[in-house]
Amino acid sequence: MNIGEYLKGKKRVIDAALEKIIPKEPDFPQSLHKAMRYAIFPGGKRIRPILAMAAYEVVGGKGNGILPYACALELIHTYSLIHDDLPALDNDDYRRGKPTTHRVFGEATAILAGDALLTEAFHLMSREGLGGEVDPRDAIEAIDEISKAVGSAGMIAGQVVDIESEGRKVELSILEFIHTHKTGSLILVCVRAGGRLGRARDVEMEALTRYGKSIGLAFQITDDILDVEGSRASMGRAPGVDIARNKITYPALLGLEESKRRYEELIGKAIEALELFGDRGEPLREIALYIGKRSS
Amino acid sequence: MNIGEYLKGKKRVIDAALEKIIPKEPDFPQSLHKAMRYAIFPGGKRIRPILAMAAYEVVGGKGNGILPYACALELIHTYSLIHDDLPALDNDDYRRGKPTTHRVFGEATAILAGDALLTEAFHLMSREGLGGEVDPRDAIEAIDEISKAVGSAGMIAGQVVDIESEGRKVELSILEFIHTHKTGSLILVCVRAGGRLGRARDVEMEALTRYGKSIGLAFQITDDILDVEGSRASMGRAPGVDIARNKITYPALLGLEESKRRYEELIGKAIEALELFGDRGEPLREIALYIGKRSS
Repeated sequence: MNIGEYLKGKKRVIDAALEKIIPKEPDFPQSLHKAMRYAIFPGGKRIRPILAMAAYEVVGGKGNGILPYACALELIHTYSLIHDDLPALDNDDYRRGKPTTHRVFGEATAILAGDALLTEAFHLMSREGLGGEVDPRDAIEAIDEISKAVGSAGMIAGQVVDIESEGRKVELSILEFIHTHKTGSLILVCVRAGGRLGRARDVEMEALTRYGKSIGLAFQITDDILDVEGSRASMGRAPGVDIARNKITYPALLGLEESKRRYEELIGKAIEALELFGDRGEPLREIALYIGKRSS
Repeated sequence: MNIGEYLKGKKRVIDAALEKIIPKEPDFPQSLHKAMRYAIFPGGKRIRPILAMAAYEVVGGKGNGILPYACALELIHTYSLIHDDLPALDNDDYRRGKPTTHRVFGEATAILAGDALLTEAFHLMSREGLGGEVDPRDAIEAIDEISKAVGSAGMIAGQVVDIESEGRKVELSILEFIHTHKTGSLILVCVRAGGRLGRARDVEMEALTRYGKSIGLAFQITDDILDVEGSRASMGRAPGVDIARNKITYPALLGLEESKRRYEELIGKAIEALELFGDRGEPLREIALYIGKRSS
């Protein structure tokens, strides 16, 4: 398969669905809806919703029931970026090559646009369970698992520990806590929610979980490596900012070579977990390999 | 009935449930969970969750199925207060007689604690629909309606327009938009979610909706009147702050007498809407009357 074409095709489907959720012609109040849209479009590679769709399909899920959940996961990802970029948190001026939401719309609107995207995510997921292709029990299960993954014991825990560790000497265990929570929780739950909504068997859920955990951490290690080696063009922001900000990174803690070795190991584990799916596992396998190639 | 005793009894039940949701012994990361708890306890009168419980009971809802939803609504209310108080928004130093969350824990943790409370609200509601007394379809309906009411077309729209109107001359229609959305949406959905989860008939839902709309607006008018007449002791913050901040209020726009007349009219409408329920409607009737007495 051609992974580039696969990703592009999925991104098109997701972007078309997001267009309907946050339309071009903003509702009242316009500033809020413009800010929400500004953060969502053009967006990144949509890797999280693509993971949800790929996991759904690998376990035999049919139809479009996964799409609102895939979009909801992208809204959650986007809200977390808006809030992370705020002056009180990472104080980032640029994201994906353009000024961050609060730089354009002001802090108040950025905070509220993030809140609105998170709220809209849950609205999307519940609405699909009421009148869509997904039955209420599956919808509730997905909401349950996703809300846990991105809450105070999941993604937000990672954000808090990340901020509190800035400028401090931290151990590998703390660095791993930050990454498995801040980045890893959401990536894992994308894969798991896709599997769950596709009615995966237990053994399939177990395989998807191993896959999701491995790529979640690999994803973050790649980001850290990119921060050392990458260019502004490939990252949308200046390289070296994590180091400049005294954020602890894998290369800083383990060295570049060891970081790369760990990354390779994780990708290997992720691919191994997919054995169960045979040929059907190809999209997920290609996505795992793709994660590391972001640097080139 | 003794409304004071009724409210105290319900508050006790709600606080006991909130104690389990956000335990005294904070989970890791401690700062986050401490901030969440700081904002929740001791809290205010818990009028929103009480409204949900009272509406549930008035339509014949049995058991404790309503309780997680009542608590979720209080978490949502609390998250909205934390974010509203932030320097970028209302920049309030005090809330309910104590320093605001960001004053104690810093802005970053306050933003994330608000995010976490909102997320936890959805987790609570979905979990109850999985293994609790509420069936999945009812749970999904409640989540659907609540997420809409507090999203970019509801509560958050009110917050945005409120901020954008500061220091500007606004018309009554804008003031009403702010209040029906910023305060009214959540109060209305408390009443409606209680009715919905208690399996209200259509005619009962219609009555609860009229009741909820009227008390929602009455609640805000009382707040505005309190800002003129109230004392720091009864409000937990200095009187006159809305005026000082150039927030438009009912008394400023319509005068004190006309504001009071409108308030009386709304309470009358709310009580009228309850006729259908006969004697069973008494708790909701007493709550409507109680709303105005907050000033004394």
